[in-house]
Amino acid sequence: MRSYAIGIDLGGTNLRIAAVGEDGKLLSKTGLKTQVWLGREHVIGELCRATEELRLRYAGSAELCGIGVGVAGLIDIESGYLVESPNLPGWIDYDVKGDIERRLGTPVILENDANVAALGEQWLGAGRNYESLCMYTLGTGVGGGLVLNGKIWRGWNGMAGEIGHCNVEPNGHPCKCGSWGCLEQYASATAVVRMAREALARGEETALRKFAEQGLSARVVFLSAMRGDTVAKRIFERVGRSLGLAIGNMVNAVNLPIYVIGGGVSGAWDAFSPALFDEVRKRSFIYAATTAKDGQGIDGRKRSTVIKPALLGGNGGLYGAARLPLMLSAAFKPT
Amino acid sequence: MRSYAIGIDLGGTNLRIAAVGEDGKLLSKTGLKTQVWLGREHVIGELCRATEELRLRYAGSAELCGIGVGVAGLIDIESGYLVESPNLPGWIDYDVKGDIERRLGTPVILENDANVAALGEQWLGAGRNYESLCMYTLGTGVGGGLVLNGKIWRGWNGMAGEIGHCNVEPNGHPCKCGSWGCLEQYASATAVVRMAREALARGEETALRKFAEQGLSARVVFLSAMRGDTVAKRIFERVGRSLGLAIGNMVNAVNLPIYVIGGGVSGAWDAFSPALFDEVRKRSFIYAATTAKDGQGIDGRKRSTVIKPALLGGNGGLYGAARLPLMLSAAFKPT
Repeated sequence: MRSYAIGIDLGGTNLRIAAVGEDGKLLSKTGLKTQVWLGREHVIGELCRATEELRLRYAGSAELCGIGVGVAGLIDIESGYLVESPNLPGWIDYDVKGDIERRLGTPVILENDANVAALGEQWLGAGRNYESLCMYTLGTGVGGGLVLNGKIWRGWNGMAGEIGHCNVEPNGHPCKCGSWGCLEQYASATAVVRMAREALARGEETALRKFAEQGLSARVVFLSAMRGDTVAKRIFERVGRSLGLAIGNMVNAVNLPIYVIGGGVSGAWDAFSPALFDEVRKRSFIYAATTAKDGQGIDGRKRSTVIKPALLGGNGGLYGAARLPLMLSAAFKPT
Repeated sequence: MRSYAIGIDLGGTNLRIAAVGEDGKLLSKTGLKTQVWLGREHVIGELCRATEELRLRYAGSAELCGIGVGVAGLIDIESGYLVESPNLPGWIDYDVKGDIERRLGTPVILENDANVAALGEQWLGAGRNYESLCMYTLGTGVGGGLVLNGKIWRGWNGMAGEIGHCNVEPNGHPCKCGSWGCLEQYASATAVVRMAREALARGEETALRKFAEQGLSARVVFLSAMRGDTVAKRIFERVGRSLGLAIGNMVNAVNLPIYVIGGGVSGAWDAFSPALFDEVRKRSFIYAATTAKDGQGIDGRKRSTVIKPALLGGNGGLYGAARLPLMLSAAFKPT
């Protein structure tokens, strides 16, 4: 019997559930609202009910090997406890893994949402031909995840991949983490809007002014940049240079084959990527030595360091979450 | 019969050879001058002669499981070719591994010198209780190496660990790598001397002035700092802040349990480490959250992120080189 896994993206607003085959094929997908205000007992109950529905659909035709759950926040991987989550207030030191396992009788793996998104991209997305990858998720903040040799790299206390807080400007804009000039302060949607407001406050001439009172968003700045607005273009150049410096540091230190840019701001790829490529070439002689201007390898080498947009959009986390029990299952399978 | 390995540190000036037991015990050590001007044929001949002498000494009492060679430069790990080396001019695309193997009939593993130094520290030095480590070697330049889960992390094209070229000052001092403000420009012996000359050129009042014409070295600046010279103290504060920012980025991105500082400049630990610890705490909320001011763990957690000086000095590379064949040998040993 074929086996499949269920991947769950447990967000503060949406609760999405997918059944994914061991070959990575999406079998089916369902979505609910996360009714956080009704309490975790209710949310986990709904999650289990929807999961059980999916399982019944495949009963007899495929075997469920486990459930992977991606959730924002600090997770104790070994115990499967959610220590705390910015999106699920009150879920403090909560045994998410154990609770779902008891209700459904199926193994559960809990993982950080940025990590499962990275794993999804490595398995089926932009990084599918690579064993190792670094993913930058440019959203309200900048998150990320590392996959090394096909596995999520958690670091010694599970905090690896906080690449939004790598420094790109030692005396730069203050960050809520306590430092100054973190990547997040130059490459998130929040940063794009802040830089636009700063330009407006300096009295610069820009088409963004008509959005000053309301409606100023990263998307508006992107569209203005694509229409040639100088200020908006300069803002996305800053996004690209900051990312380029941060990625250059990763190329020099960890030398991964591919860096994937996801999250909402990655939709502005055309506005920031030229500056990104220019900057990473300046900052990393390793990148420059292996990559021609067209992004292809040079000197007869077939491969070069790759930087590209994510492919799976919001589904990366669902696929990555499903991948976790599938990997375990594959490892235990007789050959 | 016990088994042992031979570790070789093939430098441009010195050629050092050690026999190391599988338990990490140094059995014996010998050293020669690297007579580069006599050609690689001569140097490899001397290397093999000295290695053969060591082997004969243990014949009958212990079994040689292989030879590890650490060398500065670009190495093709799979083929064992030295692509090029700054210290061994003319050794271009040279089959070091194959040449020694043919002469001695023993398996040889060639590896970058910074990588073997990191592996040595992880096996027997400052990182001996950890599976993963990042080492910064502060010498004429700044080199480094990563060990992840007990193995050297080479990256996709063997260039991982170029942490001397991670950026700490986007518009800082130009680096020979083509970038500006690399760590190497603020934390190497060369950088310490340059910063001293810059202070002298600005006409600053300092005890270093009497060394301005000759004898200005990183060591002189260190001794002046320890005697309270304000300019010298500020220079080492800069060393520490630069290292702290670079290590903070690594803590945030890769989240390793320990960062080890080696190389000649690490002898100035007392002069730069206070600024280092202060800076890494500011730059990494992960570090700050797990480490009290005294460097111990907080909140009842037993462990914290550790930053400490290397323990093995110049022998780290010898031990690390010997470790390479021992690891392979252990993996193939029946249990």
